[in-house]
Amino acid sequence: MPDISTDPRPVILIGDRPTGPLHFGHYCGSLRNRVALQHDHDPFVLIADAQALTDNADDPRRITGHVLDLALDDLAVGIDPSLTTICVQSALPALCELTQLFLNLVTVARLERNPTIKEEIQARGFGRDIPAGFLCYPVAQAADIAAFRATLVPMGADQAPMIEQTDEIVRRLNRQVGHTLLPDARADPRERSPARRRRAREDEQVAGQRPSLVGDRGRDPCGGASDVHRPRPSARHRSGPGRGQRPATYVDAFDPDRDTVHELKAHYRRGGLGDTAVRRRLETVLLDLFAPIRERRAAWAERPDGVRDILRNGTRRAREVTQATLEAVKGALGLFRVGQ
Amino acid sequence: MPDISTDPRPVILIGDRPTGPLHFGHYCGSLRNRVALQHDHDPFVLIADAQALTDNADDPRRITGHVLDLALDDLAVGIDPSLTTICVQSALPALCELTQLFLNLVTVARLERNPTIKEEIQARGFGRDIPAGFLCYPVAQAADIAAFRATLVPMGADQAPMIEQTDEIVRRLNRQVGHTLLPDARADPRERSPARRRRAREDEQVAGQRPSLVGDRGRDPCGGASDVHRPRPSARHRSGPGRGQRPATYVDAFDPDRDTVHELKAHYRRGGLGDTAVRRRLETVLLDLFAPIRERRAAWAERPDGVRDILRNGTRRAREVTQATLEAVKGALGLFRVGQ
Repeated sequence: MPDISTDPRPVILIGDRPTGPLHFGHYCGSLRNRVALQHDHDPFVLIADAQALTDNADDPRRITGHVLDLALDDLAVGIDPSLTTICVQSALPALCELTQLFLNLVTVARLERNPTIKEEIQARGFGRDIPAGFLCYPVAQAADIAAFRATLVPMGADQAPMIEQTDEIVRRLNRQVGHTLLPDARADPRERSPARRRRAREDEQVAGQRPSLVGDRGRDPCGGASDVHRPRPSARHRSGPGRGQRPATYVDAFDPDRDTVHELKAHYRRGGLGDTAVRRRLETVLLDLFAPIRERRAAWAERPDGVRDILRNGTRRAREVTQATLEAVKGALGLFRVGQ
Repeated sequence: MPDISTDPRPVILIGDRPTGPLHFGHYCGSLRNRVALQHDHDPFVLIADAQALTDNADDPRRITGHVLDLALDDLAVGIDPSLTTICVQSALPALCELTQLFLNLVTVARLERNPTIKEEIQARGFGRDIPAGFLCYPVAQAADIAAFRATLVPMGADQAPMIEQTDEIVRRLNRQVGHTLLPDARADPRERSPARRRRAREDEQVAGQRPSLVGDRGRDPCGGASDVHRPRPSARHRSGPGRGQRPATYVDAFDPDRDTVHELKAHYRRGGLGDTAVRRRLETVLLDLFAPIRERRAAWAERPDGVRDILRNGTRRAREVTQATLEAVKGALGLFRVGQ
């Protein structure tokens, strides 16, 4: 785990909701990218259990039961805990404290206007029964980003309102204290990361179509499974000539044998390429791609205490980082200090 | 300061907003009562700076500058820090964490229906620009009450919706975890305590009419002043025969010389008792009443470090109490534990 004070790499914050098992879609949309990012950034993977509770308050075990699995999935795809800090949101009190201060800097009307929130309220069928925590989650997310002093946040374009909201709050606070206490954050355009919020219905829809990262559930040595951050099907995935288009796209993206890809593409263009052939090729490609991931996952799953230690150490580092930001904010506002 | 675990006295939570100097009205409405309560209760006086920021976000120094003064006022009226725990809200992270969990158990519509909130939104002229923190403050207040496991909360009748909101949340949580994790709280009918929220306009109106606890501001050795919790004029104060009625009420309430009171009352009934005579008597009574209070205040004001130590120690005890509640709630919900 990198040293806090001396790490010159830009901080990147990746939030994952522990709501279910990961699958191939997440790998394409986010996991692969975060593995690459860890070498020249200081990434924090925040397991956003507190956020997931904002629309799962009636079933907390659905969330808490997936925290460890999410860490397992990250380790399986190649997240290196010596480069990336994996931490648990609900174990970081500074995030709550900063959220409470930030809530005073946003109006209810502003939160209600947030397009992402409006869309998600509708998708979830909350009607008039919107949990207050759900309406306020963009503020909590702003506090997350600010607390980690993240300057880069991998988020889909549909999450742009979240970054806008964060910057509005941060700028208001900076104006108030008279200096740049907190940095601006920006969305990372290189990553098509899953939004931290998913439409439940869309999740269901996608779930049946993509292979799971953990393989056959019955053979998953971890028992449970983590499959949180499903990316929405991108426009690229939704358009295209027909049923065979999605498997073909995946083959194109992941087949290391470029000659075969070239040949398949040519065949596709002149017509007569059967879906079955493409699917068969995809199967082979994915088996090769996921073999080492599944091996690593199985190895980590046999050491749950080791995974817990990684989470504990990561959360401890995250506590120091977020606490330092909180202290700076409280100090600038002149709040009473108890000392330790 | 009482021991945490073994104290069998019922916990009482008194919240004070540090928004300005205390005066005589507070003494009648709350301070006198809290001094009496400390012998057979385990009272916490919570200096609610975080709550006060929900409608003072643009001027945090207005709040932070009064925290110490509020403690001074409490000590001046006879709060004994070995019996009463005085603590600072913004230095208690467990309150924020519990608030965040509670926010998921309340709908936005429910908060908007809260009569106290509706009234205060109107009184403050927020219009559409209600800070999110302000709308959510009844949830934060519920978290305060629950975190301290307070069973008795001195609040005016106008604050009944706050207790209702608290109990709704607590019961929903208890149902969810399947046992009585948190106790019900009730308002203390014996105390006509100031509401924790004041209408700004009403504050202005009252301020000119009542003598300050600290006396002449110019001679206040503490420089600043705390006059937070002004009780709304009760129905008893607003009705009555005329201008002289309020001073007469105070004389009746505070004059230890009951013969003089009896005589004044008789004179009042048969008519011809001048306002000036009543006011003069009131002056004498108040001077006698406040002399020891002012003396104690002056003595404490010369020892600001001592006051800060009292706040620090009180806040440390409050941290232990509130943290224990939070851990119990998190444990019942199955949230990840980092350990220390």
